[in-house]
Formats: sequence, structure tokens, C-alpha cells
Amino acid sequence: MAKLWGGRFSQTTDKRMEAFSASIDYDQRLYAHDIAGSIAHCLMLEHQKIITSSDAHTLVKGLEIIQKEIESGRFTIDPALEDIHMHIEHRLAEICGDTAKKLHTARSRNDQVCLDIRMYLRDETQRILHLLHQLRQVLVVLSEKNIHVIIPGYTHLQRAQPVLISHHFMAYYEMFTRDADRFKDAYRRIDVMPLGSAALAGTTFPIDRAFTANLLNFKEISQNSMDAVSDRDFVIEFLSCASICMVHLSRLSEELILWSSKEFNFIELSDAYTTGSSIMPQKKNPDAAELTRGKCGRVFGSLISVLTLMKGLPLAYNRDMQEDKEPLFDTIDTLKACLDIYCHMLPEMKLNKKQMQSACESGYLNATDLADYLVNKGIPFREAHHISGKIVQYAIGQGAEIHELSVDTLKQFSDVIDDDLMPLLMPMTMINQRSCMGGTATHQIQKAIEHASEILQEECTNQ
Amino acid sequence: MAKLWGGRFSQTTDKRMEAFSASIDYDQRLYAHDIAGSIAHCLMLEHQKIITSSDAHTLVKGLEIIQKEIESGRFTIDPALEDIHMHIEHRLAEICGDTAKKLHTARSRNDQVCLDIRMYLRDETQRILHLLHQLRQVLVVLSEKNIHVIIPGYTHLQRAQPVLISHHFMAYYEMFTRDADRFKDAYRRIDVMPLGSAALAGTTFPIDRAFTANLLNFKEISQNSMDAVSDRDFVIEFLSCASICMVHLSRLSEELILWSSKEFNFIELSDAYTTGSSIMPQKKNPDAAELTRGKCGRVFGSLISVLTLMKGLPLAYNRDMQEDKEPLFDTIDTLKACLDIYCHMLPEMKLNKKQMQSACESGYLNATDLADYLVNKGIPFREAHHISGKIVQYAIGQGAEIHELSVDTLKQFSDVIDDDLMPLLMPMTMINQRSCMGGTATHQIQKAIEHASEILQEECTNQ
Amino acid sequence: MAKLWGGRFSQTTDKRMEAFSASIDYDQRLYAHDIAGSIAHCLMLEHQKIITSSDAHTLVKGLEIIQKEIESGRFTIDPALEDIHMHIEHRLAEICGDTAKKLHTARSRNDQVCLDIRMYLRDETQRILHLLHQLRQVLVVLSEKNIHVIIPGYTHLQRAQPVLISHHFMAYYEMFTRDADRFKDAYRRIDVMPLGSAALAGTTFPIDRAFTANLLNFKEISQNSMDAVSDRDFVIEFLSCASICMVHLSRLSEELILWSSKEFNFIELSDAYTTGSSIMPQKKNPDAAELTRGKCGRVFGSLISVLTLMKGLPLAYNRDMQEDKEPLFDTIDTLKACLDIYCHMLPEMKLNKKQMQSACESGYLNATDLADYLVNKGIPFREAHHISGKIVQYAIGQGAEIHELSVDTLKQFSDVIDDDLMPLLMPMTMINQRSCMGGTATHQIQKAIEHASEILQEECTNQ
Amino acid sequence: MAKLWGGRFSQTTDKRMEAFSASIDYDQRLYAHDIAGSIAHCLMLEHQKIITSSDAHTLVKGLEIIQKEIESGRFTIDPALEDIHMHIEHRLAEICGDTAKKLHTARSRNDQVCLDIRMYLRDETQRILHLLHQLRQVLVVLSEKNIHVIIPGYTHLQRAQPVLISHHFMAYYEMFTRDADRFKDAYRRIDVMPLGSAALAGTTFPIDRAFTANLLNFKEISQNSMDAVSDRDFVIEFLSCASICMVHLSRLSEELILWSSKEFNFIELSDAYTTGSSIMPQKKNPDAAELTRGKCGRVFGSLISVLTLMKGLPLAYNRDMQEDKEPLFDTIDTLKACLDIYCHMLPEMKLNKKQMQSACESGYLNATDLADYLVNKGIPFREAHHISGKIVQYAIGQGAEIHELSVDTLKQFSDVIDDDLMPLLMPMTMINQRSCMGGTATHQIQKAIEHASEILQEECTNQ
Repeated sequence: MAKLWGGRFSQTTDKRMEAFSASIDYDQRLYAHDIAGSIAHCLMLEHQKIITSSDAHTLVKGLEIIQKEIESGRFTIDPALEDIHMHIEHRLAEICGDTAKKLHTARSRNDQVCLDIRMYLRDETQRILHLLHQLRQVLVVLSEKNIHVIIPGYTHLQRAQPVLISHHFMAYYEMFTRDADRFKDAYRRIDVMPLGSAALAGTTFPIDRAFTANLLNFKEISQNSMDAVSDRDFVIEFLSCASICMVHLSRLSEELILWSSKEFNFIELSDAYTTGSSIMPQKKNPDAAELTRGKCGRVFGSLISVLTLMKGLPLAYNRDMQEDKEPLFDTIDTLKACLDIYCHMLPEMKLNKKQMQSACESGYLNATDLADYLVNKGIPFREAHHISGKIVQYAIGQGAEIHELSVDTLKQFSDVIDDDLMPLLMPMTMINQRSCMGGTATHQIQKAIEHASEILQEECTNQ
Repeated sequence: MAKLWGGRFSQTTDKRMEAFSASIDYDQRLYAHDIAGSIAHCLMLEHQKIITSSDAHTLVKGLEIIQKEIESGRFTIDPALEDIHMHIEHRLAEICGDTAKKLHTARSRNDQVCLDIRMYLRDETQRILHLLHQLRQVLVVLSEKNIHVIIPGYTHLQRAQPVLISHHFMAYYEMFTRDADRFKDAYRRIDVMPLGSAALAGTTFPIDRAFTANLLNFKEISQNSMDAVSDRDFVIEFLSCASICMVHLSRLSEELILWSSKEFNFIELSDAYTTGSSIMPQKKNPDAAELTRGKCGRVFGSLISVLTLMKGLPLAYNRDMQEDKEPLFDTIDTLKACLDIYCHMLPEMKLNKKQMQSACESGYLNATDLADYLVNKGIPFREAHHISGKIVQYAIGQGAEIHELSVDTLKQFSDVIDDDLMPLLMPMTMINQRSCMGGTATHQIQKAIEHASEILQEECTNQ
Repeated sequence: MAKLWGGRFSQTTDKRMEAFSASIDYDQRLYAHDIAGSIAHCLMLEHQKIITSSDAHTLVKGLEIIQKEIESGRFTIDPALEDIHMHIEHRLAEICGDTAKKLHTARSRNDQVCLDIRMYLRDETQRILHLLHQLRQVLVVLSEKNIHVIIPGYTHLQRAQPVLISHHFMAYYEMFTRDADRFKDAYRRIDVMPLGSAALAGTTFPIDRAFTANLLNFKEISQNSMDAVSDRDFVIEFLSCASICMVHLSRLSEELILWSSKEFNFIELSDAYTTGSSIMPQKKNPDAAELTRGKCGRVFGSLISVLTLMKGLPLAYNRDMQEDKEPLFDTIDTLKACLDIYCHMLPEMKLNKKQMQSACESGYLNATDLADYLVNKGIPFREAHHISGKIVQYAIGQGAEIHELSVDTLKQFSDVIDDDLMPLLMPMTMINQRSCMGGTATHQIQKAIEHASEILQEECTNQ
Repeated sequence: MAKLWGGRFSQTTDKRMEAFSASIDYDQRLYAHDIAGSIAHCLMLEHQKIITSSDAHTLVKGLEIIQKEIESGRFTIDPALEDIHMHIEHRLAEICGDTAKKLHTARSRNDQVCLDIRMYLRDETQRILHLLHQLRQVLVVLSEKNIHVIIPGYTHLQRAQPVLISHHFMAYYEMFTRDADRFKDAYRRIDVMPLGSAALAGTTFPIDRAFTANLLNFKEISQNSMDAVSDRDFVIEFLSCASICMVHLSRLSEELILWSSKEFNFIELSDAYTTGSSIMPQKKNPDAAELTRGKCGRVFGSLISVLTLMKGLPLAYNRDMQEDKEPLFDTIDTLKACLDIYCHMLPEMKLNKKQMQSACESGYLNATDLADYLVNKGIPFREAHHISGKIVQYAIGQGAEIHELSVDTLKQFSDVIDDDLMPLLMPMTMINQRSCMGGTATHQIQKAIEHASEILQEECTNQ
């Protein structure tokens, strides 16, 4: 197979080297964007009269044929043609003859590859934003549906204070909303057209970059050709956004795993998203959650991978950069799959409300409220805290909860304690007492749910 | 020393454990933000009549005294008081007596720490934006001053095509501008007030979070208390921004190191930013650039560090999160130091213009232009490329550059070649031929410089 | 302050640059090894008659004085003297005058630094091996003491089969034993003397490297001077060993955190290694375990840090390499602190044996044994598994455990089931049935404990 | 398709979940080891009379048929059968009927997977050791062949002192030898048989683990079943070894890239291992070296990936661990490909000896030797260094090298300088003066080459 760049070479490429440097295995997924980019480039060349209309027509038609061939599975992959660009170019030559050679005018592989990845990543970022939207919707619906369900809130995995489970779900809504925000910010820096940068210095042909950008629906055009062909910031930024999003998914996964355990027993995941054991018939394993938690590592790895490869590279393009694609593609696939699984697994999860409720009633979750009560009776906070601590210690000794002690007993720790304390120690009261913005009180969470619903609705309208 | 939380404990903390869990060594840098946050919280408590005006007055005064003590170096650090918050609280009790205990009303260490880091990080992000502004200014000035200096543009570290060195510098301007953009986006997500989230579920006291946010100049207020105390996204996002910025600095460093080598000999760094060798008297080592390149690893490490620690943590606060501070602080210090060094080192760098110029004249940097010439004479691009390659191969055999071959010789490779070719093979012509937007042509770079200057000017005005 | 390398420089170093490149803040911990290395080098120079005995005597005496000054806190640190080597050299010049200048004969900073780190790391690796020995001892003692305590073994955090808690502890014994093995292997590659490599190419002086190696108790001598000054493999390998060891500590930490939760309630950690909450008086948080789990990230970060900085560096020494020290030192400190805390926290942990026992009795942990019983009655494994699964499903429906169903009921699922099944479904029987090597049967675990005790004893004797 | 574990499940697995949790795409490469492991397990079951000889015979025959089917490409992959183990088991049932179900007796997927990876990794580690052997051989041959070629030794990428290029190559020999050592150490910890651990607690069947281990040629048997099924240390350790080896390859790559540049012009890589540019006909890009340098990131990423996924997992098996395979497999493929390319690329590389020689003669590489000369004339080292520095500064001013200055001129800097200095300033003299062990003197390098050849020879004999 003739190389594009064979001119000054007298020896052929070693077979090992061909395999080593080939990217066709993974970059074939860029075919549609490569073809769309080529068509736009071709139309611009025609518009600028760099090639004739007849040539342009031939090329566009040829490219469209190739697209159909690929989509229908009739396109042959040849390992000797190292990447998808070569494959398309080679096939174009078969279809259009010499005219095919004109397509590369005023364009280099360097800017072409950048264009393709940016176009591809725009689409995938949109898809991820869509999945995030869906997942946030799922969380809002779950929160609405279970607004009266209570669960212990934990710090240090110790029961701390009772909260609405909707409060808990809405915390994840907040995280995934921030993730969406970050992806949107990253999108602005992806949506920049590099074509026309050629190999590194721009081209001598009288091209019109705005024309091409317009055809391809790019909002911005790169301002410096050396930067444009060697910038992989947008890949790293995307991988960072994905890593943070995976952190959130891993935290949610950890919780589902904990909650599915016999010890917590707060939820039951659907059979459809769990698996059994080949040796232990009783097992029902939260595999989807475990795999998601594990896949976190894979995404972090991809981030480190691209950061490492870019470290210390001089301008402009270096072949190392070819290694940006696999981590990027793998991260896109991984993140989409995890988000998708969660969108479908969460709604089918069963909540063991009784178990959650009863967990709120043991473990001294009302100790803070007791302290707050004392403060309201005029005792300085730190002292109130100390008294409450002493009462907890006493109750532990008695094998009782605070609300199981008599008022008389409690009075011995502080004589400001009176009958009006008892109602304040019930979970729902405690919850509704925390009524500042962001707090767990029912009306605050309802407000948060409404607000979220409006935002999600708006996002739908704007799309 | 009495612990804040000693109530239910019968045994004292092990000395080893005290050392293990203490953070005072590094979190003391938060003192000013901690005090400012406490004062604002105190004023809000007063405004909401949760504490009396007289108590509020006492507390604010006490806090102001502590600030002065710290600033004048008269404040004692005691390893047994594990963090800066404890130190301040403890001293406040010494100054104000029992009143001091009221400051913690409606506040937990969890939301207090988040507040402090966010306030601190706002300031540091501003400082980094300022340094980035300065560095971009330096690059623009360098570009302006050296607008007529040419240098080989490289791909694969092979000379590719001549470019203006200003084009090269402005590529870095673009990178650092994107970095600034990213930090600004991150800033929006840092600038969110968490106070009022208390331990995790909000507080039972009738606080006014907007009042506090306003005093502390926060643009937004966190919407979910469980999320607010366990969110470290803003730390990770900041570390990602810093990592990408360090990638850029490492690339620039690599180039300065290459250019300082005897082989390239393109620049001479100032004695002030290089060091010698203890054993080789002739050495002048580009240490600042090497250290910056190396420090890239440290920032990547910090990013991985915080990503790892957050992976799989259940809600809400877990003590692991204390480990977010050191990597964050180290990254801030590192990035600021590197940016600062570059702001001062770059302007003092001497360019060996002759060496750069002569490097543009050997190595067949005009082969592309020869190919483009052939295309303009009607030869399809791929064929033109092939002919140009053949000529290069021939020239190498002759030990000559293309422009040193006679037109007659060149004609033997393609008869469309004529005398009009020769001027097109001179570096400055080649440069100015690349006149599309983003290309290396002088007027394009001048335009880019002007545009950048305006932006920098505007940024100054807006601050 | 005169630089060691000022000869060809006409400008002084910028103050910023001094701060940027200084390492004295962290490398002062190398002082004792630096002095010991210098004394050995000096004695070798004397032995080889490169310097006179009188000079050697003066130098050794001077170095000994400095050591005492540092140890007694009378040594002044001056930020302008960038590292510990400069500080010692400078002070030596004050003490010995011109003779001091002879110490640097046949030595460069490059090989000196390598020597110091290797000597330091030998000592610290020994300390870590000692701590690992101690921790393994603690685990063996815990296992011995609690040999009759049972606990559910988990997979996917689902109760799977009952095991001895000693089996669980001894799993960690195995992990930490492998860690020790790895550190020992790494030690062999640390224990290599680089001195004599000079800057990179060796020295022209007639030195005797074996003599120095012998004085400093090195087992091997580096074979290639260029490699010797630029090799940081031993640092990375050490960081890898530490990272794996931290993974083990993080897993153990996760379990202690889970077991301390109200839901599991398997253990109670000592007050001495937990902390309370400033707002929730009832909390007893497993902070030491959480911090250890979090510190995992910090060690991974250090590993990535040094890997990144070494990536793509040409031979031989580059200043980037100075950045290897902080991650190394931080990792040593972190790992030692975590190991130490565990050595002391584990023995004081209380086991809630009843809770563990009762957890073994619910959750169908005997389903495998039921299946195995069926296999022994001639039913193929996969079918037996299926029948057992059906029984579990039935039992769940009945709200009963398998052993709570009657034999008659069970017979309906398979008529091979008979009265002889029931004893096989009791936890202790199940445990003792798993009697192959490595299995959880009491006598196997006792054997493992004995074996471990012998190994630990042997290690003591060999040290 | 019936799941192995369907017994207690009433709902079928979601299609999404099947795709999400499937590993067949990548774990099919384990087929041969899976079959070999199953055969050994089967023979042990027979030997222990757990199954009949006739059943054993049927199973072994069936497994052998499957192996042939796979090897001849006649085996069908069905996405619904999630992994290679299921595929083989399912096909075995088709071939052997009910007997197939007996193979899983006394075995779980958990210990089976561990066995397969360990067996596979043993083979691959051997292959990598073989490639490292080959590469070290290549370096020794290159060193032998070019023993008289000199090149500047660099520190900070500044010319420092002349060295033999063989010295430089042998530095890499040392690195790759250490890599081999590390892989051998890792091998010992891979070569441990886990079978018999069953799901986590061992098995109730009277198996003979030593029998199986012996059949499969394992040196050791795992000692604790809970550890055995949840240990992935050996994967991480392997990835660490690979990461360090990639660091070495990235450093060598960086040097080949530098040396291939027009500026250094020290080497010419073969056409077979370089590529051209699609737009710049003159380019000959060191792609293999660049890709190798870039692939460093990918291996670091895999290391972080597995470290992250193991962090904080409770015992024993968790599904997250399935994610260990792809990073492991990718690293194996990457490392083997890079080593292989280097084994073939290096011998075909042309050295531009003249260019290297002449580079040794400019850049004041003899300044150290001048200083050493002064020391030998009785001037203390630091002073000698200072004088030498002054001379360099003077020479730079004159545009001359030191050896181009007259003795009279030199005398003005120190009157101990005499005619005997001049020969000492010639590169070959300087090289041969550095004759201590590890130094660059020809006879030392020859000794090192001989020593290495013997070691390589021995390794061959031992294999």
C-alpha cells in the first residue's frame, strides 16, 4: 500500500511498526465526523475556487458513497492503512481517481484529526449531558415519591441525625447538576474549529475558515495554528469532568452496596441489576454498583494517561498525541454506560421504609437536638453539648435510648429539662426543625424538588 | 486540654493519635478566613437575635484580638489543639470566657471548614488569575518586541516550516488564556457559601444564610446541606485546572531547555534564573525550567490524591476529607511559584536571532511550499507532495538545500517548475504566505497581538 | 553567599529563584547520612593518598562537630544556602578553613545526593519492615486470642459463609507479609553505593569505591556512573511497595469503619483512637481508620508524582529529579504513622462476639453447605446449587432461615435430604468442614497461626 | 440462557446489565489457561475420588475438544454468556451433558479467575523477560560495536563531559537489567496457586491442593483462602514493574528523538521505523520513539486504575475486581510491543560518529578536567573549580574553546598551568582518565560489556 508520505523514503515500513503505529482499531468510530469534515472542507475549497465545482461534486459524492458503505458494513478494513483517514482517502481514490488527491489541499492530518475529535466529542458531550439530565430527573422523581421516608444521616458512617431520604437523593441531584455545569463549560472549549491550521503554521491557500466553521456549526475558530494542532486541553478537561462525575457515581454506588447489605437492609435492588453466585445460592450481589465503583479507577487512569503523555512535549504536533484517543473513547463509553445503568436501576430499587425508620430511632440521633434544646434554655452551646454527651453515656450504660429515659432521670443532668423536651426528640420533629435553606425540613426539600423540576423542564425546552 | 467533644468519652486520646490526626501544621494558613467567617456568623446570630448584641460585640472583639496576635507572631501553637479552628476557639475562651462557647451555635466544624477553604481558595484563585494575566502580558510583549524574528516550527521535533517566534509565543498566550478561562469557571463553583449546613442536616436555629453570604461576599448559597459538607468537587476541579496549566508550563519549560542546549543554541537564559555545576565550571543549567517541568508531577500527584480519597465515600462528611488540604495548598504554592518565575524569567531571556534564522534555512523547511507551488500549477496535492519528496531525497544526496538547486535541476522532477518558484522558498515569504486566520503570516500575528492586548487591557479595567 | 559554582556567572541569582530551587526545608533530614557519607569519602581519599592524613583528620573532626551542632539544635539554617549539603559544606569551611574545600575532590553533588537518599532510605525501609513485623505480630496474637470467634465472611458485602475471625485477621497477615517481602526485594536495589560516579562520567582521581562501600556497609556498588546519578527506580519501587501496603491498610480501615457502624456493630474501637463530634454528642468516630483510608490517596499521588517527573528525561542528571524527595519523605512519614497507629489500635479493639455469632445465623450462610450436601448425595453440582437456591427463595418467602425449616419441608425440594443434613448447617460445623489447606477450619487456622509465629520468631533472630 | 446462579431469582437480567457486566470481549484471551486449569482440577477430583474416573475422562476429553474448537476458530461467542468461563462451561454441557456440571465441584468462579490470571501472567512475564533479555543483548552488541565512538555526556541537557557512547548504552543495559530483576521478584509472587479457596472460605470437599499445584507447575500454594480470592497485589506489582520499565523506554525514546533532530543530528533511524508527513515531504519522524514515550502515560494510567479500584474494598471478592483485567492486558500488550520495536529498531539505527565527535570538542566539556588538573597541582577543589570557571568565561568572550587558548593565556589564571595540561583536554584522554569502576574509561566499559555478556549467556543456559 503506498504511503501518503513515501516520497523521500527508500525503505518500506516494518510490519511490526505498522501494527505498532496503527490506530484503525479504535479511530474507525470517527468515520462519520471525518466524512462530514471532509465534505465541509471540500465545499469551502470550491467556494474559494481552490478546486472546481465539478471536482467538489465528485468528491462529495464519493464521500457520501463511502459513508453508506461503512454504515451498511460493506467497507473493508485493511490493517496496512493505519487509520480511518487513510482508509477513507484510499477508498475515495478508488472511487474518484486522481480527483481524490485534491481533497487534501490546504489541510493536514494534524488539523483534520483535531477537527474529527472535536466534532465527535461535541456529540458525545451532548449525549452525556442528556444522560445526566435523565439521571437528575430520576433522582427528583425518587425524591418526590418518597418525601415522607426518613433515614439516618451519617457522618463517619455513624448515625448522626435523621434526614429525609429525599434530602439524601437531592444531594446527588446537586452533584450531577454541577457535573452537567462542568461539561457545559468544557463544551465551550471543545466547540472550536481547528481546520485551516494545516500541519502547524497555517496554509498558503486562500481558504475561508469561517465558511467551514459555519457549515460544521462551530461557535468559535482557533486563533493560533500552532496551538490548534497541539492543544489537547479539551481532552484532559473532559476527562477531569468525567473523573469527578465518576467520583459521584462511586459514592452513590458505595451507598447502594452498604444499603443492600444484610446489616443495613435499607433497599433491595432489582433482580435485573444484580447477579447471583455460582457457588452460594443465597447471594444477590449489587454487581452494577460494584462495577461502577470499580470503573472509577479506569477513568482516573485515563486522565493520568493523557496528562502524562502531554507533559513536557515541545510544540507543535508530536506522535505521542495519537495516544489521546483510546483513553478518551474508553472514558466516554464507560461514563455513558454507568449513567445509563443508574437511570434504569434506581427507579426499580425498593426502599425498606420500616427498616430506615427504625434505624432513626436507635443510635442517639437526637443528641444534637437535646443539646440545642438546652441552648434554647440559656445554656452556652459547648456546655449544652457536654451535658448531652453525659446523658448519652448514661443511656448507653442503661441500654436505652435518650427518649426512653424519664424526664426525672434527665433532669438530674440539667434542671432546665422539662416535659416540653420529649416531642423534640422524635425523628420527624427533628427533621422539620431543620428548616433553614438547604436543611432537611420537609418544606425545604419540597422547595428544592420544585426548583429542580423547573430547571429540568427549562433544560428540555432549551434543547 | 479538654476536647470539644469529650462528653461521652471515658478514656483520653492517645498521643500518637493526636499527632496522627492533627492538621494545625498546615491549616494555620486558614486563620484569617476562619476569623472572618466567625465574625460574619456572629453578626448573623446577633441579627437573628440568637445571641445578644453584647455577646456578639464581645465575640467580635475577641476574634479581632486573636487576628492581631497571629499577625504579630504572638500566638502560641499547641500540638494538642489539633487544628486552627480549635486554636482560635480555645484562645477565644481565654479572652471572652463562657461567652466564647456561644459562637459555635448553629454551626458545626464540618460547615466551618468548608467555608474557610472556599474563602481561602477564592483569594488564591484570584491571585493565580492575576499571575496568569501577568504571564500572558509578558508573552504579548515578547511577541510584539520580536515580531520579525523567525524560528523553525517543529513537528515530531523535526524542523517543519518556518514561523514567527511571536507565533510560537502567542500559542502559549492561547494556552494560558484557556487556563484563565477554566479557573474562572471553577471560581463560580468555589464561590458558594456552605455555612448553615451544620453537621450535615441543617440547624434548628432560625439563622439567615443570605445575611452571612452577603457579609462574606458570596455569590451563591449551597442548596443542600448534606451535599455542602461533603462536596470536594471544587477542590478537584481546581487541581485539574492547575494540572492542565502545569502541562503548559512543562511544555514551555521543555522548549526553553531544548533551546538553551548547545545544539539548538536559540536562547540564553539570564544568570539570575540558571545555576552552575559544583563540578563542571562551564555549565549554565536551565534549573528554573527543569524544576517547573518536574513540578508538573507533583501537581498531577495532588490531583490523583484527592480523586482517590473521595472515591467511594458514603455521605456525608468522613474524616478522610481532611486529607484534601495538603495537596490543595501544595498545588497553590507550586503553581504560583512557577507562574511567578516565568513572569520574571521570560523577559530577561536573550534570543539568538541569527541562529534561529539560519536554522530556518536548512532542513528543507520549504518542501511544503514547493508542493503547494506545484498544486497551484495544477498538480493534485498528493502527487505534488510526492514530487517534492523526491526532490528532497535528491537534495539530501547532493548535500544541498532545495533552494540551492538550480531551476534546471528542479525541472527534471516536474516541468511546471520555473523561475517564479525561487522567491517562494525564502523563509519570510513562506511565513507571510500563510495568511489565513491563525496562520503565521506577520499581519495575522500582529492582529493576534493587538487582539490579545485589548483583552488584557479590558481584564485590567474589569478587576 | 558565594555559590559553589559562581565562576562563570556575572549576575547573581534572583531571590525568587533561590526560594524556588531551595530544598533545605525538606532535605535537612538527610544531615546525618550526608555527614556519614562525607566521613567515609574523606577516609577513602586519605587511604588512597588523594588527601593527606592531616587534612582527613581535620575534615572528619569538623564534620563531627557539625553533627553535634545539628543534633543539639545549635546549627543555623540560612535560606540562601539552598540545601543541606551546602549548609554542611559552608559550616565546614568556617570550621576548617581552606581544607574544607578538599572534601569535594572526586565527588559531585549528583552522586552525593544519591548516596544520601540511598542511605536514608535503607534506614527507613528497615524501620518500616520493623513496623510491619510488629503489625503482623499483632494480627497473629489477635487471631490466637479469638480463635473461637466466628464472623460472616462476605463477598460483594453480602454475607456468604461463616469464617473464623482469625481467618479474616490472618488474611491481613498474609498481605502484610507480602508487603514485607516486597520491601525486602526493594531493599536489595536500594543498597547500592553510587559514590564515585561524580557528575556523570566517573572521576579522574584514583579512588577506591569498594573501600567507601565497605565503610558505609553497602552490599553492592553501582556499575555505570551515568545510570547511577540518574537512576530513581529505587524511589519509584519503594513508592509502589508503599502504595500496595496502603491499599491493604485502606481495606482493613474500610472494614473497621463498617464494623464500627451501628448496623454492623461488630467492634468497638478504643476511645484513644476515635474522636467525637463538636455538634453531635453521641458520636464516636473511627477517625484513625478514616484518615488511614484517606492517606492512601496521598501515597498514590506521590507515586504518580515521581513517575511523571522521570518520564522522558534524557540522561544523565536533570534538575527535575530534585522533586523526588518530598513525595518520598512524605510517603515514609505517612506509612510509618499508619502502621504505628494500627499496631496500637488493633489490640485495644473490642469484639462484639455475640453480634458476630448471631450475624452468622441469619442470611442463609449455609446455602452452600446445603448444596455441597446434595452433591455428596450424588446430585451434580450445578443442579445442587439450583435446588439450594430454590430453598433459599422459599425460605425468604417464609421469613425463615434454612435451618428453621423442617426436614419434611426440605424433602419437597429434593428427596435425598434427610435428618443428617441439620448438623451440617450449624456455623461451627460449616467452618470446620472447610478443612483443606487455606480453608477456614479451626485446625487449619491454628496451623497458619503457628506457622506465622515461627516465621516472626525467625525474623527476630535474624535481625 | 440459563444463568449459573439463577435459583433464587425471579426476574431476568436486564440487557443493559448483561452488556455492562460482560467481560467476554477481553477475557477470552484466558481460554487456554482456563482449560488447562479445569483439566488439572478435574484430574485432582478424580485422584481424590470426588468424581469417578469415567466422569473425569469425559470432562477432560470435552475440554480438549473445546480447546481445539477455539484454536481453529470454530467456537461461537455469545454476548449473553458473560465471560470465557461461562462459554467453556456452557459448551462443555453441550458436549458432555450432565457430567459437565460436576466440574464445578469444590471450585468457585472466584478462585478459578484468580488461577487463570496467575497462569496467564506467568507466561506473559516470561515473555517480557525474554524480550528484556533480547533488548539487553542488543544494547551490549551496540556497545561492543561502537566502543570507540564518543558522544557528549549531558546533565541538564547541557554538554558536560565526553563519554563513550557505549557507556551511554550500557546505562540502559543497567536499567533494563534492574527491570528484569523486578519482574523476576514479581514472578515469585505470581507463581502461587489459589485453587481450592473456593468462594472465600475453602471447600468442604476433600481436595488435594498440592496435587493440582504440581500438575500446573506452581511453586507455591496460597495459605489463606480469603486472601487468595481477594488479592490483586500481584497485578499491581506487575503494573509497577511495567511502569518503571516504560519510564526507561520513555527516556531512551526522548534521547532518540533529540538525537534525530536536525540540531543534534547524532543518529539516523531506519526508514522502517519512522514515518513521513502527509503535508511536509522532507519530514522523517521518529514515530516509534514518540509513540513509546506517549505509551508511558497509558501504563501509568493502568497502574492508577488498579490501585484506585482496590482502595478501600472490604474482604473478600467484590465485583469491582473484574476491572483489573483490561488494564493488565493492555499493559502487557503495550510493554511487549514497545520492547519488541526497540529490539528491532536499535540495531538498524545509524550513528553519525563525526557529528558526535565534533560535539565533544565544543562546549567546554574539558572544564572539569582542567579543574582536576589544578587540584593535582595542589589547589583545593573548590578554588580549582573557580579558576576553571573564570577561564571558561574568558574563553566564551573570545569565542574560543579552552584547548584553543594558549598556555600563556591560561597561565594568567593560575601559574601552575603548564604544557602538560594540553593532552589532558582531549576527549579520548578525558574519557580514559575516568577509570574507576563505573567510569567511562574504555577498559571499564569493555569490562562492563564482558560482564554483561556473561550474565546474558548464563541466563540463556538457565532457561
